[in-house]
Amino acid sequence: MTPKGDSHTQKSSQQASLEWLSAEYHDLNGDHIDILEGTPTALEFARIVQISRPVLIKRFQASSCKWSNDYLISKMGSRPISVAVTPNGRADAITLGPNGKLYFAEPAVEKMSMKSLLDNLSDDTCSAGDGAAAETYYLQSQNGNVYSSGFFNGQDDLSEFETLRQDIPSDVKWCTEALDKSPEAVNVWIGDGGSISSIHSDPYENIYTVVRGQKHFTLLPPTDGWCLDERLYPHATYVRNAGDLVLQPSPEISPPVRWASILNPHLPGCIPPEAHPIHISVSENEAIYIPVGWWHHVRQSSITVALNWWYDTEMRGMSWVMLSYLRDMKDVPSGNTDNEGSKAVV
Amino acid sequence: MTPKGDSHTQKSSQQASLEWLSAEYHDLNGDHIDILEGTPTALEFARIVQISRPVLIKRFQASSCKWSNDYLISKMGSRPISVAVTPNGRADAITLGPNGKLYFAEPAVEKMSMKSLLDNLSDDTCSAGDGAAAETYYLQSQNGNVYSSGFFNGQDDLSEFETLRQDIPSDVKWCTEALDKSPEAVNVWIGDGGSISSIHSDPYENIYTVVRGQKHFTLLPPTDGWCLDERLYPHATYVRNAGDLVLQPSPEISPPVRWASILNPHLPGCIPPEAHPIHISVSENEAIYIPVGWWHHVRQSSITVALNWWYDTEMRGMSWVMLSYLRDMKDVPSGNTDNEGSKAVV
Ligand SMILES: O=C(O)CCC(=O)C(=O)O
Ligand SMILES: O=C(O)CCC(=O)C(=O)O
Repeated sequence: MTPKGDSHTQKSSQQASLEWLSAEYHDLNGDHIDILEGTPTALEFARIVQISRPVLIKRFQASSCKWSNDYLISKMGSRPISVAVTPNGRADAITLGPNGKLYFAEPAVEKMSMKSLLDNLSDDTCSAGDGAAAETYYLQSQNGNVYSSGFFNGQDDLSEFETLRQDIPSDVKWCTEALDKSPEAVNVWIGDGGSISSIHSDPYENIYTVVRGQKHFTLLPPTDGWCLDERLYPHATYVRNAGDLVLQPSPEISPPVRWASILNPHLPGCIPPEAHPIHISVSENEAIYIPVGWWHHVRQSSITVALNWWYDTEMRGMSWVMLSYLRDMKDVPSGNTDNEGSKAVV
Repeated sequence: MTPKGDSHTQKSSQQASLEWLSAEYHDLNGDHIDILEGTPTALEFARIVQISRPVLIKRFQASSCKWSNDYLISKMGSRPISVAVTPNGRADAITLGPNGKLYFAEPAVEKMSMKSLLDNLSDDTCSAGDGAAAETYYLQSQNGNVYSSGFFNGQDDLSEFETLRQDIPSDVKWCTEALDKSPEAVNVWIGDGGSISSIHSDPYENIYTVVRGQKHFTLLPPTDGWCLDERLYPHATYVRNAGDLVLQPSPEISPPVRWASILNPHLPGCIPPEAHPIHISVSENEAIYIPVGWWHHVRQSSITVALNWWYDTEMRGMSWVMLSYLRDMKDVPSGNTDNEGSKAVV
């Protein structure tokens, strides 16, 4: 059974429901997000998780080290790390293929030393993301690249960042205590103004801190998902071919990827006026709590090092049911059947 | 705007949505409710509130006094208390009026001494609720009859049970701390097998404890509301007329009352098989947490004294939006226009 009922003529009722939920949510919650002057207690954070709205946390110090290029290079030496490489800084994003079709494009993943990565990043905001010939590197392996679930289950857990572990706590104490569970994955992210994380949501509670530089988040509540023009896109991956990165469509048999078609929520008119994006920057030694199901678009303007702790979402109760409902209520057309699909390349 | 959209032909889509939500909720949560061997810490309770499922709490001792008839009478003396009086034990319930119409009937409220109340209650389960001529008394004034919000706001707060206050704590510490607020109302309930509280839901988090006797709850999640045949009923009140209680319809102008038509969820076939009622009894020195929006039907088989603490619900976040949505999605026909309305008198 789907929540849509049997008839094909019910789209307006579905749409009315989604619009009602998002208007009602906004009426009750506004655009406000709380700013905490310091880290919360476990009990305070448990209350925050119940409300499930983002919170900016000041004076969050994950680690006392400096995170300078020199420090990172000295700690990592020649150990290979997996870096996302794209021609345009858009890993995991909707991209126009050479055949004029839109794809959900995964980056090439190349192994390099920390020095090679950092040599390729720049603090020069002007050159960043200007679409020039240079390739864009982003350390965003995000599979628990520092600690993965194996670590917490006492199993083997190999990390490319083993030598950085002493600088990166495996959990956030007050969050672990509030949620009564260990993280599912802990990641380090290193990138510059050339990289963007396209708008998406995760099935995780996320504590995300910046240890160097600054991140710019655009956040939307789960109820605003209907404004993001989710569509189904064929899958493709960048591969290196005679030195160049080319987008290679995956075999027809691979399932299409459901993804938002809004490339840049900052462009006027991209998001319908009913949506309520919240723009917030996170600076060094600040953290943001991004609740499960919240949409986020993330960028940085200079070299930025960030850490995050993903905790599995609570499946009991009503929240997960509600998120599934919002997801399943939506019509998700193909991204390539009509002209509207080209929205994605704005 | 309503979540129903504009068309009148969308009922099946609304209905499909409600059924999907209730099936999905049940798939993820089952019929299980947790039983705690003792009172939770504030943090443990905050986690429970996030999940928003009922929990039975053992070894909850609100007070060390005995709650015997003698004790209650000695403490209360001749102070008048407001008691709900009905011919049938159904205060605040759907009732057939003398004119053949169904009404939402409020009880007569009569002042009497504690002794008069207790003299009218019986531990004899056989005579209870047998519909004999005797009237049914139920102390259920439930307007914060022990402490009302004025008490917590430092305002005047007169209570008929002033002299019992030293036996009734004004709040439940771990709940107050978890929710970060004082109760909105604290009530004492005294009744016997003749009285029933018909199925309804409240906009409160509810900690309900039995200090003498036993209460039998039937609980349904908010998502099962569509199974309860809510309808609109004209309002009426029992008034005493030449010694007898008669049901007096309120002036036409008073708004109809939206109420579930299921009188007795224990009768087979009354609730559709898609609903998932949970039956649970609460004994002396146990408490039950009834989360906001959960439907409950309550009865007792012998003289039972209970206390409860209602805490205002959290309006921020998604839960209240979801409860409003479930409520607003439902078609609520009149209780008197067709034969189905007569369900209510089963
Ligand atoms: O930092 C980024 O680029 C993306 C972070 C993100 O999407 C996440 O932590 O879920
Ligand atoms: O004890 C009763 O009869 C009803 C209690 C109730 O409905 C409540 O506490 O919300």
